[in-house]
Amino acid sequence: MATGREWIVDAHGCSAALLADAEAIRAACEDVITTLGLHVVGAPQWHRFPAPGGVTGMYLLSESHLACHTWPESGFATFNLFCCRPRPAYRWREALREFLGADDVRVRCVGRGIEVVDAGERWLEEAGTGGGHA
Amino acid sequence: MATGREWIVDAHGCSAALLADAEAIRAACEDVITTLGLHVVGAPQWHRFPAPGGVTGMYLLSESHLACHTWPESGFATFNLFCCRPRPAYRWREALREFLGADDVRVRCVGRGIEVVDAGERWLEEAGTGGGHA
Repeated sequence: MATGREWIVDAHGCSAALLADAEAIRAACEDVITTLGLHVVGAPQWHRFPAPGGVTGMYLLSESHLACHTWPESGFATFNLFCCRPRPAYRWREALREFLGADDVRVRCVGRGIEVVDAGERWLEEAGTGGGHA
Repeated sequence: MATGREWIVDAHGCSAALLADAEAIRAACEDVITTLGLHVVGAPQWHRFPAPGGVTGMYLLSESHLACHTWPESGFATFNLFCCRPRPAYRWREALREFLGADDVRVRCVGRGIEVVDAGERWLEEAGTGGGHA
């Protein structure tokens, strides 16, 4: 049975300037990758939408994927991190405050391919990782 | 306020041969894109992991993204479709049965950047789209 966890992160109240800055978004994504010891496969894909649009970044990982979208006009950014292997906790709230000026970061975690919810919770505990709202 | 919806789809009991077949996975992804009238930005990114590993495909969309991962050894595939604009319903269960031989497809839908849950539900109804387990 394949198992995995996906972190669904919504960051509100971010700096519009930082959300339009591809280098700032790249730095935020790369901190996730470096901190969790993830492995990028191939070149990440980046796109900057015409103003007032934001930036999209997608990393194909050997552990699954990381995707980020930003909406500078709303001060809003989303991150998805899908890991098919246990990983330690990442400091989403602190990091997105630091990298993007976020003042409200909501972190949800959903199981993928998990048949029993309790088993999923144990998986999280084993990885030392938690979900829930900030 | 930016709003969006993400469909989190886990397909169990798929054909191992189809899950290892990049063309079958591509056909499944492209049916989603064509049916929903989504717009692909740049070239989709594909990777085939060494056996018994599966296939990963990632599409950067002007509406956000579509990502797919497969685990042939477990008969398991995941899809994520993140749309920042309302879209009509997609026939996940029937399509994944048809394209991948799935016998159990679980579809969840989560709001992104939605402050009020009720507003999110209305968004779904307006788009004629639903979530929930198969």
